Amino acid sequence: MKKVSLAFALMFIAAASQTFAQSSALRSSVENGEAKFAKLFASGDSAGVGNLYSEDAELLPPNGAIVKGRQNIRPFWQGAWDAGVKKIEVKTVETDGNGKTAYEVGRYALYGEAGYVLDEGKYVVIWKRSGETWFLYRDIWNSNKK
Amino acid sequence: MKKVSLAFALMFIAAASQTFAQSSALRSSVENGEAKFAKLFASGDSAGVGNLYSEDAELLPPNGAIVKGRQNIRPFWQGAWDAGVKKIEVKTVETDGNGKTAYEVGRYALYGEAGYVLDEGKYVVIWKRSGETWFLYRDIWNSNKK
Repeated sequence: MKKVSLAFALMFIAAASQTFAQSSALRSSVENGEAKFAKLFASGDSAGVGNLYSEDAELLPPNGAIVKGRQNIRPFWQGAWDAGVKKIEVKTVETDGNGKTAYEVGRYALYGEAGYVLDEGKYVVIWKRSGETWFLYRDIWNSNKK
Repeated sequence: MKKVSLAFALMFIAAASQTFAQSSALRSSVENGEAKFAKLFASGDSAGVGNLYSEDAELLPPNGAIVKGRQNIRPFWQGAWDAGVKKIEVKTVETDGNGKTAYEVGRYALYGEAGYVLDEGKYVVIWKRSGETWFLYRDIWNSNKK
């Protein structure tokens, strides 16, 4: 009886550790992805930003139609840059998922040329894994401003 | 050798069937939840709508601050009703997740008193399971309109 209990306890600990390791790895992958996004955007590299999205990704921007596919996502972010957004700060708040897809809930801030805050808001990104790499797959956000 | 191949094939089919059954069950749960949302909202039952959200749920509405907790989500939807939204149509496009959390990507339309379309847009809901019930946990949306 004691042996069985111990075996169950060890299985439970092993399963819990694995779950923790997985969710911790997932959060790191997502935060790394977001760090790349912020860095590439701030350097004006909209092609690089676009490459963080899956080929079949979709942006779901406020007050506009859905932007479908990496080839249309690149010019979207180039357009934001041209319109005066020079830095995007993102902060991951929550992540969860399975081995293939994951969600991220976060907060963002957009900055202009002189560090002026243009907008602040919240977002959800659905990430999709391809091989060892996680790509932005669905990206929706909206402003806190009236 | 043939026996081993057959065993592997059967294991693969069993695993694939289980995955399909799980994702199919998840989509049904999400669609049932959304159907309840639409029905309760259309009957003016904002308390009922609120009960579809987890106690710790958050609305991430466009052009506004995050609405935290079921007790604040109820008056949010009551406010939408009072402001003239009489029907909300939602259409689930994609779902995925694990046994505890899931994401849904969808489209919505808001209707006024005489069936006039007030707004159309897209949304992402993060669902969280508690016992056998899936609750709306995070809810973000934005308009297609300029």
